[in-house]
Amino acid sequence: MKLAILGVGNVGKTVAQLSGEYGHSVVAMADSKNAIVNPKGIDVGVALEQKSNQMPLGDASLEDVFDSNYDALIEATPTTLKSAEPAFSHIKMALEADRHVVLANKGPAAERFEELQSIADGSKGTLRFEATVGGAIPILSTIEDINPKTVTSVKGILNGTSNFILTRMAAKNLSYSHVLSEAQELGVAEADPIFDVGGIDTALKCVIISNILSGGGFRLSDAEVEGIQHISNHALNLADKSGLTIRLIGEATREGVNVAPVLVPKTEDLAVEGTQNIVRIVTEHGGILSLAGSGAGGGPTASAIFLDLQRLIV
Amino acid sequence: MKLAILGVGNVGKTVAQLSGEYGHSVVAMADSKNAIVNPKGIDVGVALEQKSNQMPLGDASLEDVFDSNYDALIEATPTTLKSAEPAFSHIKMALEADRHVVLANKGPAAERFEELQSIADGSKGTLRFEATVGGAIPILSTIEDINPKTVTSVKGILNGTSNFILTRMAAKNLSYSHVLSEAQELGVAEADPIFDVGGIDTALKCVIISNILSGGGFRLSDAEVEGIQHISNHALNLADKSGLTIRLIGEATREGVNVAPVLVPKTEDLAVEGTQNIVRIVTEHGGILSLAGSGAGGGPTASAIFLDLQRLIV
Repeated sequence: MKLAILGVGNVGKTVAQLSGEYGHSVVAMADSKNAIVNPKGIDVGVALEQKSNQMPLGDASLEDVFDSNYDALIEATPTTLKSAEPAFSHIKMALEADRHVVLANKGPAAERFEELQSIADGSKGTLRFEATVGGAIPILSTIEDINPKTVTSVKGILNGTSNFILTRMAAKNLSYSHVLSEAQELGVAEADPIFDVGGIDTALKCVIISNILSGGGFRLSDAEVEGIQHISNHALNLADKSGLTIRLIGEATREGVNVAPVLVPKTEDLAVEGTQNIVRIVTEHGGILSLAGSGAGGGPTASAIFLDLQRLIV
Repeated sequence: MKLAILGVGNVGKTVAQLSGEYGHSVVAMADSKNAIVNPKGIDVGVALEQKSNQMPLGDASLEDVFDSNYDALIEATPTTLKSAEPAFSHIKMALEADRHVVLANKGPAAERFEELQSIADGSKGTLRFEATVGGAIPILSTIEDINPKTVTSVKGILNGTSNFILTRMAAKNLSYSHVLSEAQELGVAEADPIFDVGGIDTALKCVIISNILSGGGFRLSDAEVEGIQHISNHALNLADKSGLTIRLIGEATREGVNVAPVLVPKTEDLAVEGTQNIVRIVTEHGGILSLAGSGAGGGPTASAIFLDLQRLIV
């Protein structure tokens, strides 16, 4: 397919670089300032080289991107909450032009789910958003395939940063603030870490899942959210003595979303380590499915985008 | 969709019972002796009640089943090897009549993969076989979605019977023959257990995966297979002292299939317990995906069949 990529951060860049390997071409690409359009396919290497040298991607405008001959829009701009702009308007424009949209941006799917569905219902294009939840782990597609109606609940670890911090605090008996600084140096945590350690990122993903299970109706403000900022080494040591550890668990049901630190047996699959993610999908007839893998990063998130594109073709 | 179900064992029966819940109807059903056809939909409860009272399902013939107004054939007869008959002929007849086929029977997909693909290529119907590998765990669909070309290898535990035996031998220090008898009493192992404990069932599933990764070319006779019959408590105890346990691991790559007992760290996700199954899908760009769940039984296997039907509709 011919792709138009909005957002040239880690995810957008990786999608552009791997698109050829998956049989796609990039005909348009825009970061927050500049854009490049080529109906015959952009030379991705050259364009990204320009950008890495602080030069403009190209001399096109965002309007030119939407006027281009793309089949699918890849929305990979930074997540924004509430109005979820400008991503929401990007998606709307593409769907109203009967193009497909593949979303990596959690904002619109969490905050304006029903509006998006109704726009998608009126479009010949299809809206998919596997990349918004759990990186490379095909959580949303699996729920779709096994039929959301027969899924009772989904719970798990959906934020690698928090899990890295909890794992390392427990393994090395290091304080929260110490490990947070380490994680920031390693690039595992942002300078302002509240989005991850405060449970907001996990909550957004669970809101998206609850919306899928119930056909919509939830947004971030409906979620009960507690982060890991107050977890002490004392609490982790106490847990350890009983064969337990502490994990930031998000749970999505038809009733709503709950995110909180929870005691988990160390032998259970839920106790994944480091930046890994895991979810347990409880089904009516197929038992409990556990899916684990890389929940973030350019490659894993790009994989989810290519999975969505693959499902648009079949 | 209108379903024709061949084979009324645990799997066929469960599919028939749950079909209404998933929005399907059953228009034909056949066991090894009798058949029933009703273009308006069979009363599944009544038909299965007949069968449980040792009465014929109905007075139709297998020919009538194939002449019926079904959209998708569910092939759930017992697995046979080499010629994979009669399942192979059933599939051929349905595909040649441009109907969909959903396979629960491993024989044809493992032993005659390329023939099946070529028949499917010439049909307006689609052939799917998620239920042949890993019960409720959507292994084949996930490989399909992430693109088989970008999958390096698939390995894991694909036989619940062997895993039950190894888990219980290790946990209770009981002998292989003792636990095997227990498993037979519980219905977890067959009277002739060689298919499971000899690694053949695992090998068939891995052959199907290798065929998907490489586009065909493998059958059971190509697999290197060693079972768990010679695992001693001595070996399990020795492993335990180093934090390890023994698991029957199947591995599928483009180069072939290997099934053998392997030492696995007890803390790794691969060391699932009891009748659970797990696979690790190693991908080029999305890291390692681990999928775990119920690998056998009526409900889980029926779930995989409904997943295939769902993917035929979308």
